[in-house]
Amino acid sequence: MKYGIVIFPSKTLQDKANSLRKRYDSHYGLIPPHVTLKYPFEADEHTTEAIVQELRHIASEVQPFTLTSGNVSSFYPTNNVIYFKIAQSEALATLNNKMHDGVLATEKEYAFVPHLTIGQNLSDAEHADVLGRLKMLDYHYEQVIDRFHLLYQLEDGFWTVYETFHLGKDC
Amino acid sequence: MKYGIVIFPSKTLQDKANSLRKRYDSHYGLIPPHVTLKYPFEADEHTTEAIVQELRHIASEVQPFTLTSGNVSSFYPTNNVIYFKIAQSEALATLNNKMHDGVLATEKEYAFVPHLTIGQNLSDAEHADVLGRLKMLDYHYEQVIDRFHLLYQLEDGFWTVYETFHLGKDC
Repeated sequence: MKYGIVIFPSKTLQDKANSLRKRYDSHYGLIPPHVTLKYPFEADEHTTEAIVQELRHIASEVQPFTLTSGNVSSFYPTNNVIYFKIAQSEALATLNNKMHDGVLATEKEYAFVPHLTIGQNLSDAEHADVLGRLKMLDYHYEQVIDRFHLLYQLEDGFWTVYETFHLGKDC
Repeated sequence: MKYGIVIFPSKTLQDKANSLRKRYDSHYGLIPPHVTLKYPFEADEHTTEAIVQELRHIASEVQPFTLTSGNVSSFYPTNNVIYFKIAQSEALATLNNKMHDGVLATEKEYAFVPHLTIGQNLSDAEHADVLGRLKMLDYHYEQVIDRFHLLYQLEDGFWTVYETFHLGKDC
């Protein structure tokens, strides 16, 4: 089974993101707008309980924090992903680190750059055009994040939430 | 904000459902396959915490239970919704009742018939054709349900999970 771990930001920011994802993100519809904490990873269904226990432990150790979104940027030339910048923070870095350790140990393909994807799988020309138009706009929002979610992927690519974890709480 | 309360059945059953929803369900993509416990209802964002507290209380009072899916049926002539039958059970009825009381009190438009929708907004001809072909097939699965989810709807119709509630547990 393929799992992923994400933060869903405020409805306001999700609505802003989806108004753009609708046009530019080939994954629009597969998953709501999100900030990825740990990229999709394979795990045996029998290890789900161990993963859940570990995530409960991680959640209990990190207090709710303020997440700040900023303007539009891109991972070009690594890839043509366009995203809302999310300010790096100690809480995000700690969550990401702990989610790549112990029972959750997997290789990190890239350094952790917090972001909320709004466009992907664009041609070079589309990418340049969309980025050029959006990078003037301001998507600065601040919001308290008090939870994250463990998701699993269905055969047709859609993601279903398995569980919510509350920051700063034991359960 | 519009909220809804659902059970996500096993990945196996969700995959079976989505292979059909892809063709027959106009809401495919807006939400993973689910069994509705409480239909979408409006609530002020300031009452979210009271709703969450009430759902925690309800979850703690109902033990995990076995959910049994069956063959394909339809709500025709009330509407052209085609679904996997879900066997009525004391746990489902109790959850549904408690979710229409107290802070969660809303009118029930229909009697509670547990089901997992696989087709909707079909023309009469399509509905008759699809139902005729699917109702011979067997979708009998049994699975333990130990959780339900509170969701909210984004402006473009997509549903995001707000929180998971564990049956038989205080948190």
